[in-house]
Formats: sequence, C-alpha cells, structure tokens
Amino acid sequence: MQADVAVLVGDAHRGLPPMWLKSGATVINCGPVLKPEISRSQTPKAIDQLAQEIGLLPEELEAYGRTKAKVRLSLLDRLKEQPDGKYVLVAGITPTPLGEGKSTVTIGLVQALSAHLKLNSVACLRQPSQGPTFGVKGGAAGGGYAQVIPMEEFNLHLTGDIHAITAANNLVAAAIDARILHESTQSDKALYNRLVPSVNGMRRFSPIQLARLHRLGISKSDPGALTPEEAKTFVRLDLDPEKVTWQRVIDTNDRFLRKITVGQANTEKGHSRQTQFDIAVASEIMAILALSDGLADMKQRLGRMVVGSSRSGQPVTADDLGVTGALAVLMKDAIKPTLMQTLEGTPVFVHAGPFANIAHGNSSVLADKLALKLVGEDGYVVTEAGFGADIGMEKFFNIKCRASGLKPNVVVLVATVRALKMHGGGPNVSAGAPLPKEYIMENLKLVADGCSNLKKQIQIAHLFGVPVVVALNVFQTDTQAEIDLVCRIAEKTGATAAVPCHHWSRGGRGSVDLAHAVKEAARQKNNFQFLYDLQMPIHEKIRTIAQKVYGAEDIDLSPEAQAKIEYYTQQGYNTLPICMAKTHLSLSHMPEKKGVPTGFVLPIRDVRASIGAGFIYPLVGSMSTMPGLPTRPCFYDIDLDPVTEEITGLF
Amino acid sequence: MQADVAVLVGDAHRGLPPMWLKSGATVINCGPVLKPEISRSQTPKAIDQLAQEIGLLPEELEAYGRTKAKVRLSLLDRLKEQPDGKYVLVAGITPTPLGEGKSTVTIGLVQALSAHLKLNSVACLRQPSQGPTFGVKGGAAGGGYAQVIPMEEFNLHLTGDIHAITAANNLVAAAIDARILHESTQSDKALYNRLVPSVNGMRRFSPIQLARLHRLGISKSDPGALTPEEAKTFVRLDLDPEKVTWQRVIDTNDRFLRKITVGQANTEKGHSRQTQFDIAVASEIMAILALSDGLADMKQRLGRMVVGSSRSGQPVTADDLGVTGALAVLMKDAIKPTLMQTLEGTPVFVHAGPFANIAHGNSSVLADKLALKLVGEDGYVVTEAGFGADIGMEKFFNIKCRASGLKPNVVVLVATVRALKMHGGGPNVSAGAPLPKEYIMENLKLVADGCSNLKKQIQIAHLFGVPVVVALNVFQTDTQAEIDLVCRIAEKTGATAAVPCHHWSRGGRGSVDLAHAVKEAARQKNNFQFLYDLQMPIHEKIRTIAQKVYGAEDIDLSPEAQAKIEYYTQQGYNTLPICMAKTHLSLSHMPEKKGVPTGFVLPIRDVRASIGAGFIYPLVGSMSTMPGLPTRPCFYDIDLDPVTEEITGLF
Repeated sequence: MQADVAVLVGDAHRGLPPMWLKSGATVINCGPVLKPEISRSQTPKAIDQLAQEIGLLPEELEAYGRTKAKVRLSLLDRLKEQPDGKYVLVAGITPTPLGEGKSTVTIGLVQALSAHLKLNSVACLRQPSQGPTFGVKGGAAGGGYAQVIPMEEFNLHLTGDIHAITAANNLVAAAIDARILHESTQSDKALYNRLVPSVNGMRRFSPIQLARLHRLGISKSDPGALTPEEAKTFVRLDLDPEKVTWQRVIDTNDRFLRKITVGQANTEKGHSRQTQFDIAVASEIMAILALSDGLADMKQRLGRMVVGSSRSGQPVTADDLGVTGALAVLMKDAIKPTLMQTLEGTPVFVHAGPFANIAHGNSSVLADKLALKLVGEDGYVVTEAGFGADIGMEKFFNIKCRASGLKPNVVVLVATVRALKMHGGGPNVSAGAPLPKEYIMENLKLVADGCSNLKKQIQIAHLFGVPVVVALNVFQTDTQAEIDLVCRIAEKTGATAAVPCHHWSRGGRGSVDLAHAVKEAARQKNNFQFLYDLQMPIHEKIRTIAQKVYGAEDIDLSPEAQAKIEYYTQQGYNTLPICMAKTHLSLSHMPEKKGVPTGFVLPIRDVRASIGAGFIYPLVGSMSTMPGLPTRPCFYDIDLDPVTEEITGLF
Repeated sequence: MQADVAVLVGDAHRGLPPMWLKSGATVINCGPVLKPEISRSQTPKAIDQLAQEIGLLPEELEAYGRTKAKVRLSLLDRLKEQPDGKYVLVAGITPTPLGEGKSTVTIGLVQALSAHLKLNSVACLRQPSQGPTFGVKGGAAGGGYAQVIPMEEFNLHLTGDIHAITAANNLVAAAIDARILHESTQSDKALYNRLVPSVNGMRRFSPIQLARLHRLGISKSDPGALTPEEAKTFVRLDLDPEKVTWQRVIDTNDRFLRKITVGQANTEKGHSRQTQFDIAVASEIMAILALSDGLADMKQRLGRMVVGSSRSGQPVTADDLGVTGALAVLMKDAIKPTLMQTLEGTPVFVHAGPFANIAHGNSSVLADKLALKLVGEDGYVVTEAGFGADIGMEKFFNIKCRASGLKPNVVVLVATVRALKMHGGGPNVSAGAPLPKEYIMENLKLVADGCSNLKKQIQIAHLFGVPVVVALNVFQTDTQAEIDLVCRIAEKTGATAAVPCHHWSRGGRGSVDLAHAVKEAARQKNNFQFLYDLQMPIHEKIRTIAQKVYGAEDIDLSPEAQAKIEYYTQQGYNTLPICMAKTHLSLSHMPEKKGVPTGFVLPIRDVRASIGAGFIYPLVGSMSTMPGLPTRPCFYDIDLDPVTEEITGLF
C-alpha cells in the first residue's frame, strides 16, 4: 500500500545524537534503495558497537549472534541515580485487520528524535509471535524505512523468550495433570513417601515444600513429625479437574488445539479431560515477564500463579506444585530485554509480547525502565501498546503503569485514512483481498464520518489526563484534502497536535514534524490519573471500562462470570486491576461494528484470574485465544536460499 | 554414588595441547573443590577465546552469551583440504535406569587426550531434552570432574535448537489440520482462488506451488491456464485424516498428551481426530538436523518429509503443504553446532538430541565433520551414541555413518559394575530409590554373570569390524577384585583393551589410561562394514537387526506393520536404513529381561517412515514416545537465587 519508496534517508544527519555520539557512535550510511530490499540492503552495525555507543558496559551485554544482545538488569542498579527520560506511548485508533502502522510510527519517531532532533531515544517494542508471522499477518518489525533490522532475526526466534515462556508454561501444565493422576492412584502414605523420600537414609523437605507447610499452618520441619492428618493435607492438592484454569500454550496458529481432550492413553487410567492450547503470548507467564521489575519479583509472581482450585474450593498455586524454582530457572534469561537497532542505527529494546486483545499486550516494564535511564533526562523512550487505544492503551495505563509506577508524558495516537474510511462506512477490509476503490480514491465524506472513532480514542486518552499527538500514517493514495481534514478534526477534538507522517517512505526524516510535536507535548502539564480505583468491586471496575472507554450502556455478566467474581472476591483477589479480553476490531465486542458503536451492553462470558501477573481477566463475548491458519498462509512465500542464506517472504 | 571427590585435576598439564596452544590457548586453573560446587567453582573462559584457541576465525563464530556460540558451516569449506582426525564412538552396555556415565566418559576422555596426551580433541555431545531435565533424570552435562560448563546453560535452552525444531514441527502439524479443514469446506474453485490469489490484479504461483505442479506432471506456469481438472489435482491434497502420520511435539514430559483428541471446538466443524504429542527430540526434524550435511541438504530433506497419505494412497509431503521454505527459515540457526567447553577448558560441540530408543539419538553429522577437520590428522573426535550399543551404536553405524560417509576408528564401550550386577541377577535399580546392598558390597558372582551383557555388546561392535575399548566407569563402592574381573572378561571377549576410569573424581587425569588405550586401538586395522545391505527387503533388514544385534529368534510383524511395509515398498521407500524404536533397558523388547535374553520373538507393532530423515522406523512392542513426570519430579529441587542468580538442583 505504502509504495512511494525511492527517495531517501541517506543524509548526514542519521546515526546517533551528540550525547551518545560522544562515546564514538557511528553514522550508518545507506544510499537510496528500493522497497523489498530495504532491510537487507542496510548492514546492521555490530551489536556490541551499538551497546558501547549508548553507554552500556561490556559486562552488561550478552550477545546472541552479531545483531542482537540481551542486556543485564544490573544496568538498572548502575544507573539508579540517573533521572528518567520522557515517556511516550504509541497507541492507535481501532485498526483494520491490516494494522495501521503503530510499529512503523514508533520506529520512525525514534529515528526522527535521534538522528534529526539529536535527542537520545529508544524504541521499546514487543517480540512478535511466530503464529501470525507464519499465518496471516507476517512479521512486526515495522516496514519501509522505519523498521528494526535485521528483521529476520526480529521475526524469528529472537533470543528465545517466547520459547522459554512456552517451556515454563507447559511444565506447569504437565505437573498439574501428572499430579492429579498420582494423587488419584496412591495412598496418602505412598504419596508422602515419594514426595519426601529417604535419600541415603535421610528424609528432608525441600525449601518449596517447607513453604507449602508454612502456608498450611504446619510449623514442622522434620518429615517424621507430621501427623497422618498433616501429611494428608500436605500431599493432597486435591485439584478439581473441572476447575483447572491453566492451559497449555504453543507459539503456532494451530486452530485444532482450541478445544482438545487429553489423557486418553491407557497409561492415564481414564483421567481424560477437555482443555485447550492458547497462543503462547497469551500465557500468564508472558504477562509476568512484562510486568515484573526484577528477578525476585518475577519469581514471586511465578509462585503465586493460581492454576486451579481444589475440590474444597481453595486456590492451588505453582508454589503448591513445587515448580516455582524450575520456572524461574527457565525464565532467567528471558527477563533480560533484547537490544537491536533501527534501520538508521538507533537502539531498540524488544521485550514481552503482542496480542493486546487477549493479553495485556505491552512491552515490558523492565525494558521501559532500562531505556528511561539510558536516554537520561532530556531523552525519549517510545513504547508501543497493542491495537486500539481502547485496549492496548487502557491496559498500559491501568495495569502496566500501576505495576511500574511510571507516568507517561505523551500519547501518540496513530490513525490512517484507510481505517478512518472503514469507520465512516467503507466496505470491508481484509488481508489478502484487494482494497475496494473507496480506499484508493479521495472520499472526504467517509473520512469525516470515520473520524468519530479518532475523536473517541482521543477522548479515551484524555480520560487519563495525558496530552495526545495524533500521528497520521500517510499512504500514497491519501489526498492532501483527506490529510488536512483528519488533522483539523483531531486538533479540534483536543489533540495537542495532529501531524502527517512519512516515515515509511522517508525514514526518520519523514517523522521530524511528529518528533517536534511530541517534544512540544511532553513539555505540557500532565495530569496523569488511573481510570478506576482498585478498591472498587470487580464488576464495577469492569463496568467503568465498558462505559467510559468502550461506550457501552452497561455490562451483562453471565452466571459463570458472576460466580467467578464472587469466588475471586472471597479469595481476596478483588483489588486487582482488570485485563479485558475483547476484540481489537471494534470499540464494542462486535468486530463488525465500526466507528463509535452505542447502545450496546457488553457481555462478560467468563472471568479468569491471573494472580501471578496480578490482574482479573474478563472474557468479552467469544474471544478466541488461539488464531488459525488461512487457506494460503504466509509461509507459501517464505523461503531460504541455501547458498546465500538469504530469506525471502518475511515482512 | 561416585563420591570420592577431593583430589584433583589442577595440575599444570591441563588446558589445550601444544598444537592448539600455539595459538595462545590458556590453561584453566581451578584448585581442589568439593562435589556440588564443581561446575560452578570453575569459571569458564570466554567462548571467543576458546574459539580462537582452536583456530576458528572471528567471522565463523556467533556468540550466544559469554559461554556458548554457534559455529558457522563456512568453516567446513575453509578446512576442506584438512585431513580428518580419528573418530571415536562412545557407546555402552545395556544401562540401568540411572545411566552408566557415557557422557562423563566422553568428556573425561577428551580431557585426558587434550590436557594429558597433548592431542587435539573435541567431544561431540547431544543437547539434552528439557523433559528429563525437569522430570526424572536431571541434566546430561556429564558430572563430577568430567562435565560441560556452565552446565546450567548446557541443560537449559542452550542456543534454542530444540525450540526451533518444536516450532518447525508444529507448524507442519497446524498446516495439516488447517488444510484438511479448508479442503473440506471449500469448492475447488474457491480453494484455487485462495491458494493463487490475485494481488494487484496479478495471479502467480509461488515457487513451491510450481514445484508441486511439476511433481503432478502439470507443466504450466500461468495460473489462468490450468484446466478445472488440473486445478482440482493441484488444490486437493486430499489428506486422509486417518492416515496422518505427523505428530505434534513438545519438549516437556507431558504424559497427558500421549493420546489426545484435537479439533473439538465448533470452529473446526466436527473435524476432530485422535492424535498425540511426542517428546520434541523424537521429531523427524531432529533426525534431519542430525543427518544433514548442510543447509541445502537439510532443506531438501524437510521438503521430502511425508506427513500422511491421501485418500487415494499417495504420500503427502511438506513440499505439498507449501511449508518447506518456512521450515528452513525456522531451522537456519539450529543447523549450526554449538561450541562449549569441558571443565578443563577443552572444546565440546553440542548438537542434535538424545533418546536413542525412540529416535536415532546421535549427535550431528555436521558437528562430527567440523570437529574432525578442526582437530586435524593427529587429533581425536569423541562422539556419543545414546543408550546401549544395541540401539545407539547400531544406529550410529547403519544410519549416521551411511549419511556421513565417515568411518569410525574405535568404539569405547562404557560399563559399570552396578549395571553388570543388575544383568547378573541383582535386584531392581530405580531412580530415587536407595540402591540395594548387592550394589554396595562386593559380589563377584553377580558381576561375572552380568558380564554376559558386556560380552554381547562387544560382539555387536565387532559385527561392524571396529576395535572395542571397554571403559569401566569406576564407582567408589567398586572393589579391586570386581574391577579386575570385568577387565579380564572384556579382554578375553576380544576387546582391544579394558580400562578402569576415574574421570568423575579426577577429571582428565582419571582417564589417561583410557586415552592411551584409545590411541593404541585407533592404530589398529579397521574393517568397518555395515550390518545389512540397503537393497534387502524392509522386513529382512529388521530381522537382521533383531537376530544379529538383539539376539532374537525371529520377528513378528503385526498386520498393521506388514501392511505399512508393503505400502512403503510400493512407494519406493524400501532401500532406506532402519531406525528401531526399542526399549533401552534390555537387549530384547522386554525391559525387565536383563543380561542376554534368548528365545524371544521380537514383536513389530507398527512401522513408520521418516522419509526426510531417510529411515524406516519400526516400533518394537509398546514404546512410548512421550515420557511422564514422576510423583516427585526433579523440579522440586531446582531453584534460582534471585540475588546471586545461582541455580541449584540441576545436575
């Protein structure tokens, strides 16, 4: 779509700004290049060179190949006295299924801030899921002259974080079913003898078993001293198979795993049950990775994860399963953000995962914190929230900012003429199909009508007291009149500024106006506030989001949702924030309702709890937590030349 | 068990031999240390330093953190004129469930060869599966003073190869079920329009689609030119859901996935079917990784993988699914072996995976080839085959050596007094339970009787015409009389030498005698030969292995196995070698039959085909391809100190 690529980037301004340049930063020099080869034509600088340029010490870096590296958390300690930079969130209007370019805006903006305004800046992005990369959407490295390079590395295994999450998540799942089986086939005594075996004539509790005894109120440390009743309480988690809430995950779009029956082999003795796989990035462990502020905090959160409840209604945790230490070990490297670079050689942190519809979908607290320290007081950190502002941004504020204690200075709200036309009543837009003519020809009426969605999303950002800059991601087919109209309406609605952006075709130079507008907005007074008080009852918090953010008349709790809320309240989980699982394709729960739907009641089908991550997780309508593959998945175009090792078809 | 650790290693001989020392190699200096801290007490040298010492160029290395690195395959080109070193295979007698120390022997031997005999040498090990690491067995880094460091890195994600295999394997699985669904719900025309869509008014076949047309005998490249009948043939793989042989995999011991039903959600419209997950290392893609000799070969093998057959009985491949390029992309880094180091600072390649019972279970052809070039003519490469010689070694010879064209010089056969006593009639040995007194007190009768298994395994190695050195892995409880007895019997059976080894307690110094014996044996005349001719019918090849290796009277093919053999023969797969899936706990198919079972008929329950890997895969008796978690998995003892980042409980 955005095809006016030809002119260029390649001016002397590119490279890192003076502050970082002091340390000897190099300016990358790529001449004018053509579209499909943009990423590949630019040789990334060595990652240790970039790290040195931005002030990392060699011992703070763990290279993974030549173009990516993990950054050790000790950096936070070293820079703890350094004041934070400005904190900019990139959110969007309700997107079409094609996406409206938040990643490219994010990267274009840091390229402009760094190379053109000479301000230290870092982009914080999320690691893409391999599901969509090989399914419909392709990669998420940005695009055109605003992308992360090498995009192949960004879009593939990266430094293995999602694989680590998958391994940890599925170890919990295996432990749950195996434990149910073992408890059902063994006496209390046999279980006790196996859980606390005699090794070389000695019996002892492991530390995680002592912690369980402590939670059970049994203050004994000699395995021989437990009464039979105490031993029984200790060995029996008594998980109710019907009330296991933990799901297996996989980072593949495998729709046949949406509902499955496990345990059908004879060796499992009839203990089959129905369950499901979710896409890996929806794992609670991904949310924990994103929200933790260090190794100790991550480990505590992992231990607190509730995997189900006992037949007597008590929550059963990862700590109860004895698996917390192993999870922390599996996640010990994943907690370190990955450093990469933009096409213009400026730093990018990649950490945590996408899917703000079914997860919280923000990059990590740790990446943002590291970046804020690194850029210093005059610098900028640009972090991205998934999908429309109604979901990604709302969760950024109410969940992530609560966890981090950080206050954002500016919201950049990304819009496209294409998406606005869709909201104004334009025909359906879908991946793979050609765009109808309404999207190619000027149509001011559709744009004007569709700006209802933009206005609403601006108003949502204002609920949180943060200034908004609208970034109109300009496509080749957009007319000047359309562009002017959007900017006029945005500014009239209260946006501090509304700026057309050309980063895709021009790199950082195409986002200089946006960078200036963001710098200006960051100077404004900021009245940041949360949308709801954590002390409100769970259903009131859900209602507040539904009414104030989505524009619903009310919420409708299913009996199941109602029962769960009562249970969670009784368990003391009622003061957690809310992480809505809602379609990203509409402000409402109905993907086909574009613009600003009104008069609807938001159905809450079920409510789950991610106690380790620290949020309550209502399911709005029929949200799927596992995407599928289309008839012709992206993989048809993906190839590797075995001689040149060049990859084609990832984008 | 092996607890006489205290004396040491730390002499001036350690470090790399003169040839490599020329390049400035450093000798590692660790003082005497105590058992649980052995691995951690030794600071590994930086991996780029080790790489430099062994003659790698900086551009041939891709560091993953500070202690492991992938080695680029371009090294093979650079060294192609270099003569190969000596090629030593470490195999074992039939083990107890505790394992008899093949990895420690392998590492002890290279430590002795390098640091004490001053010969270039490299150990080639397999990456452990996380299943057993968190299940029963723990890690596989070796132990005591013969291990790979840091063993935490070795035992966790390493450089992500198994995760890449899992991702690739499961993308194929998702593509299969999604394709069956899409074909069942769409007309030929709709399928064709989706598979060959019009993009900006242009329709074109992707290269992988053109290749399918070519296989179908349709020599057209214009999507508009196909007849309806041709289009139908092209779009319909017509996979028979009952005949899908491809399974999903996961690197977790998750017994509840042994038999499952998938596709039970409404969105899958009733297309549910029964299937299973295997442990990831049993994936055909792992076998391909191990047997490929380069990127091009790997890609071809991936494309040839047969995932099932059509309703008309034609094999359906990864190429037919259009997924080959994506698989190659997912595997592009996994194909590079990982370089690590022993406790004494000598090089180790880690590549491919374990489970020689249900897979071929050898390290990779590429790692061995790289190592043979690196050590040069006078050097030694010590590579390990899984479990007893009857399975790991037999597959090494008949499958891996056929694929590589390499000829081994020596087999080192690992035995323990403990395992021999078990074969002699000693009581059961199981993980977690204390060892019965027979294994702690001298018992020459049990040892003498148990040597039947040792003799048989020596004879099996001799079938292949390769000299055998028996390495008796000495435990603290073994008496001199027991040790002497084993060595005497081994030499009488025709072993070139039989040597007690003390690498666990003494490092390389404890394996100097073994190193000398291996050096001596490598000078012997070598009459290497395969066990069977590939032109023999499939069932004859199976029978040959069963009779000559396992000692069976005959084989008994189930009707299912018989039918599969006929089908594979008709498809032209009859000239492939055989990869038996058989228990590792007995020479027979009955794990409880120790020593040398006789008079049994080997039941072949089913036969599968791994066409990409290039072998036929008979299932002997009821082999499980998915391990389970015990009541008290290892993870109870695994922990991470969030302050020191120290890991405990991995071993």
